[in-house]
Amino acid sequence: MARNITPKETDYSQWYLDIIKVAELADYAPVRGCMVIRPTGYSLWESIQKHFDDAFKETGHVNAYFPVLIPNSFLEKEAEHVEGFSPECAVVTHAGGELLEEPLVVRPTSETVIGHMYSKWIQSWRDLPILINQWANVMRWEKRPRLFLRTSEFLWQEGHTAHATEEEAMEETLKMLEVYRRIMTEILAIPVIVGEKTAGERFPGAVNTYTCEAMMSDKKALQAGTSHFLGQNFSRAFDIQFQNQKGEQEYAWTTSWGVSTRLIGALIMTHSDNDGLILPPRVAPVQVAILPISTNDSVMEEQLLPRALEFSDKLDQMLGGRFTFVDKQFHMRPGDRFFYHLQKGVPLRLELGEKDLAAGTVRAVRRDTGSKEDIPFENVPLRVKALLEDIHKNLYTRALDFRIANTFSASTLEELKVIVEEKGGFVETYFAGTPEEEKKIREETGATPRCMPLNDTCTGTCFLTGKPHARKTIFAKAY
Amino acid sequence: MARNITPKETDYSQWYLDIIKVAELADYAPVRGCMVIRPTGYSLWESIQKHFDDAFKETGHVNAYFPVLIPNSFLEKEAEHVEGFSPECAVVTHAGGELLEEPLVVRPTSETVIGHMYSKWIQSWRDLPILINQWANVMRWEKRPRLFLRTSEFLWQEGHTAHATEEEAMEETLKMLEVYRRIMTEILAIPVIVGEKTAGERFPGAVNTYTCEAMMSDKKALQAGTSHFLGQNFSRAFDIQFQNQKGEQEYAWTTSWGVSTRLIGALIMTHSDNDGLILPPRVAPVQVAILPISTNDSVMEEQLLPRALEFSDKLDQMLGGRFTFVDKQFHMRPGDRFFYHLQKGVPLRLELGEKDLAAGTVRAVRRDTGSKEDIPFENVPLRVKALLEDIHKNLYTRALDFRIANTFSASTLEELKVIVEEKGGFVETYFAGTPEEEKKIREETGATPRCMPLNDTCTGTCFLTGKPHARKTIFAKAY
Ligand SMILES: [Zn+2]
Ligand SMILES: [Zn+2]
Repeated sequence: MARNITPKETDYSQWYLDIIKVAELADYAPVRGCMVIRPTGYSLWESIQKHFDDAFKETGHVNAYFPVLIPNSFLEKEAEHVEGFSPECAVVTHAGGELLEEPLVVRPTSETVIGHMYSKWIQSWRDLPILINQWANVMRWEKRPRLFLRTSEFLWQEGHTAHATEEEAMEETLKMLEVYRRIMTEILAIPVIVGEKTAGERFPGAVNTYTCEAMMSDKKALQAGTSHFLGQNFSRAFDIQFQNQKGEQEYAWTTSWGVSTRLIGALIMTHSDNDGLILPPRVAPVQVAILPISTNDSVMEEQLLPRALEFSDKLDQMLGGRFTFVDKQFHMRPGDRFFYHLQKGVPLRLELGEKDLAAGTVRAVRRDTGSKEDIPFENVPLRVKALLEDIHKNLYTRALDFRIANTFSASTLEELKVIVEEKGGFVETYFAGTPEEEKKIREETGATPRCMPLNDTCTGTCFLTGKPHARKTIFAKAY
Repeated sequence: MARNITPKETDYSQWYLDIIKVAELADYAPVRGCMVIRPTGYSLWESIQKHFDDAFKETGHVNAYFPVLIPNSFLEKEAEHVEGFSPECAVVTHAGGELLEEPLVVRPTSETVIGHMYSKWIQSWRDLPILINQWANVMRWEKRPRLFLRTSEFLWQEGHTAHATEEEAMEETLKMLEVYRRIMTEILAIPVIVGEKTAGERFPGAVNTYTCEAMMSDKKALQAGTSHFLGQNFSRAFDIQFQNQKGEQEYAWTTSWGVSTRLIGALIMTHSDNDGLILPPRVAPVQVAILPISTNDSVMEEQLLPRALEFSDKLDQMLGGRFTFVDKQFHMRPGDRFFYHLQKGVPLRLELGEKDLAAGTVRAVRRDTGSKEDIPFENVPLRVKALLEDIHKNLYTRALDFRIANTFSASTLEELKVIVEEKGGFVETYFAGTPEEEKKIREETGATPRCMPLNDTCTGTCFLTGKPHARKTIFAKAY
């Protein structure tokens, strides 16, 4: 039934790109590695943004905007950090028709410039906490771009907070991790494992990095969002000091956390099938497509279309926004109209033809299961509501079941290697190795430690080094 | 009464910067000419954005995102356009650790790259119209930056539409001009004159440029938003062709339109006074500040604060969002707390002390007039609503009266020069000169043609050339 989509079993990578193409989510830009986010993709990003932004504001955060260009010297201040990004930078050397005295880097992240401003704004404990978030474009040059997953430019949010105490900063780090987990599971229907990164996978400069890890439908892992406890590392590098209540000068405790347009990639690879995109209802810009169908113009204009618009109004009212779309693409064949919405991932399609009208019912078709049912007119709002809730649950459960079915245990390097090669998926084990040992595992198996789950405090013997009290750790190949 | 603010009569330019500083709207960034938009300023931008974005969507537009870097060759495609921007460009020459084969320009505007994508997306009349808007950062290198008015980087929206017919494109151009006018007057309370630009002030490449021109409180003009009818100029430069209903290839008709963070500068210079910022209620992120005041902790906690929170809930419900702020800065003296909100431009302040509580009233203080009144508890929502409406009206009328009082007529170059030098303000005249003659006028008087008002179709003899049938034109010094 798929049109213009390579089956995922044939070529997963091509399937992914085909989904993006037929749903018109994005396109490659004329600049290497950059993307154009097309209206359908951008409306999805707006919907994702709104859920996160509301949650940030509810937890006391405010938005601000910092400059896109950063003096090169700023990146040198914090040596450890630079090593992480330097080859990825796009560098402005000329501006205003002149060679610049100091090159400027297009922000790969705004830690440094925000740190610089915080050192100016923060004087006393009364100025703390500072709870700022920024929605912005960032740039990390990519040699092998992949739409939404790795592009030279992408959109994201970066939270940067400064606190008077270590405890408060750690609380913030975990609070935002929980915000991420909640939205990913409850809105995006993506099951995630919440955990701590191992030393080798930590954000450069962070004391601790926490992550939400998801399993894609090819069994590879995708890091969907991270929250960093930076201790006093950044405040030392950027001289963010404040006078505490005792009158002493102290370095502030900082955090940072971010999610990006990569989440769109995660949505595609978690839920979609060989027919195209599948969107979970709570994040779908169009939750219900309503299609009046008839070749009889007067029936269409006098009966079907008015009825479709009436359903649209009622459903929008119930859904609390404009989440329905009345399809008026009458120049297209009904089958093409069905496929249009199916490929765009619309969770529920309501078809209304002359026979339906006579029967006083509308035909509802679920995107996730393809199942159909006829709903009496008077039941439409309530039944649609229930169906949308069920679609969310089904998508979440389906993805969770898939992850559980593809999670294995290993107690030796050989076992890990065999599982990764032959089955794929997540591999649970106990691990207490160094970053060098992580590198060795990666070279031998292709897998990296994704995280040490927070809700699993069991310890055991390290599968690699034999050290005792090693923490439960998940390994997988990752995007 | 002003604190840390230079009176506008002493030094307008410093007054403007002081307002921004005390209201914490923005700060200079460590990169020349760039700004940091602080949380108070950014929440104002978010409020402005929301009003425009809603109106764009209501008129059928969708958002999308195009890359921040543009190949230098794109800017050369359309020679006329380049001349307008080239010295303003920031140029990326290195990326990924290598010298790029072709330099990339940080977008000064996205016409070129959007044109490039449109040429790929548009094949047939069925693909038209394309009604896309982008919210983005853009960069035009500034040697003499001024926060919100001229910064090397700023935030804006740029609408870019393509149509099958000239009529439809012209209709779109004027429709968006009207959207701008409506929001500027009805939300920002900024009276604007809607008009057409003269040839010398037109956007490079445009057939017609339309503008909303406002008068600032120093009598200078500020171009608050523009809408361009581009004819087929851009579609020829970027090969945007489509097959029309007759089966012929035709170039599309395009438009573009934009407003930017400059509107924040316009808000400041239209409404504010020597005490600080004044925000019109409909765009103010905080419309009402509620201040419980007492040195008695138990009265505060048991009586005043609960009452303040109750008012806050009721008012938010009435206003349809979180537009109130309950001030809990109890470590500050009452006078400092009043000033805090006054300097941030909050339209209405409600003070609630022990005496007010006893009398069953709350004291309301208007930011625009300073007038005070005691409102009985039960009348608070209705009276606040009426006061906010009146504040909007008063701010608009005050600005309109100011503009009318500072608009003069001239019928010779000498008159124009004298008015501009001695009085300032807008000067109405009839003009039919060339771009070279506009330049001459500018050199002699400092004034430029701001626009030819759309609602004034009178013609007369050109004040400069003596040509007949010249259109009514407004001249002024401008930001
Ligand atoms: Zn950084
Ligand atoms: Zn351009």
